[in-house]
Amino acid sequence: MLKFFYAPNTCALASHIALRQAGADYEPVRLSFADNQQRTPDYLAVNPKGRVPALATGKGILTETPAILAWIAQTYPAAHLAPVDDPWAFAQVQSFNAYLCATLHVAHAHRMRGYRWASEESSFEDMRRKVPQSVGDCFRLIENEVLKGPWVMGETYTICDPYLFTLAQWLELDGVSPDDLPKVADHRRRMCELSDVKTAIDIETRK
Amino acid sequence: MLKFFYAPNTCALASHIALRQAGADYEPVRLSFADNQQRTPDYLAVNPKGRVPALATGKGILTETPAILAWIAQTYPAAHLAPVDDPWAFAQVQSFNAYLCATLHVAHAHRMRGYRWASEESSFEDMRRKVPQSVGDCFRLIENEVLKGPWVMGETYTICDPYLFTLAQWLELDGVSPDDLPKVADHRRRMCELSDVKTAIDIETRK
Repeated sequence: MLKFFYAPNTCALASHIALRQAGADYEPVRLSFADNQQRTPDYLAVNPKGRVPALATGKGILTETPAILAWIAQTYPAAHLAPVDDPWAFAQVQSFNAYLCATLHVAHAHRMRGYRWASEESSFEDMRRKVPQSVGDCFRLIENEVLKGPWVMGETYTICDPYLFTLAQWLELDGVSPDDLPKVADHRRRMCELSDVKTAIDIETRK
Repeated sequence: MLKFFYAPNTCALASHIALRQAGADYEPVRLSFADNQQRTPDYLAVNPKGRVPALATGKGILTETPAILAWIAQTYPAAHLAPVDDPWAFAQVQSFNAYLCATLHVAHAHRMRGYRWASEESSFEDMRRKVPQSVGDCFRLIENEVLKGPWVMGETYTICDPYLFTLAQWLELDGVSPDDLPKVADHRRRMCELSDVKTAIDIETRK
């Protein structure tokens, strides 16, 4: 059985949703960031980066959301979570997910994790002030140039959808109004209605 | 024929090397960041993100280094640039490349592109001071936990190698000494000896 390491309210939710949609047999393992459990020796032996998500399989550990999502899609092809037999269509899926991890999630992370890239409180404050613009710019690009609708890639649901949904959960906290992003907001609303999304969130947030 | 949009001394070099190693028929198109050519209307019509690399194919435009690299490997399988028929091994390749784009390249970008995430000159200075540590931490993780040698994934060369090489080109400018990273330094040295690496750099930097 797979072991899936996550923390609530992190990007791990994207992989969690995809695992459920794939029908994977997995055990969720919760880490508490409040208790710094991602820095314990036990967890650093799983993932030396001290981050989530991490997926333990019979073959070893896999980290990084875009890699986990693509692996799930390739390993459970019956779930049709990505166009794994069409390199061009698959590349478009990968391009979207790479943008989320390297640009959108990074912009968001400057609200709470500025210490990764600076040392002074004044810099952290400056970074926090910029988040509504930087995160907003990313979502406006997605809204205007990328999101085809009803799903990210058009008529067919893919691993782009749980990833976008996960980062769109943070819009209000990042100071970006969903009212200005009708396609993104509609996407978020429809994702919320999927049973695997509800169940993943319930597992991650229950006491 | 493919059109490959790049700027010198950017992460586009990774995809450029892979295109050559794949034997792809491509036309290199240089953008001058000094002249802000990545923000012209013509280029924004190619890539609304205003970034490089971008690859124009008969089917459309592809952006984001990890997606371009994986597409090259899947589209030119005879070049054996990734284990495209083994989802687990392919996922490890993807995980490494995702770490480079979302963590290592991002840490590096705080040296010159702090304006993406802050507004004050004092914040930019603070960010620049942190780069030797943040970039160094990434390379130490790669040195100690990931790089198997002689290539990133072990005995077999993959699309991880030109990507690591490209970011390792910036070690000294980022204030990280290659002397403390013997495996990374050895990898960089051997990459420099490959004819496709020499040719890609020559094309990108010739007057």
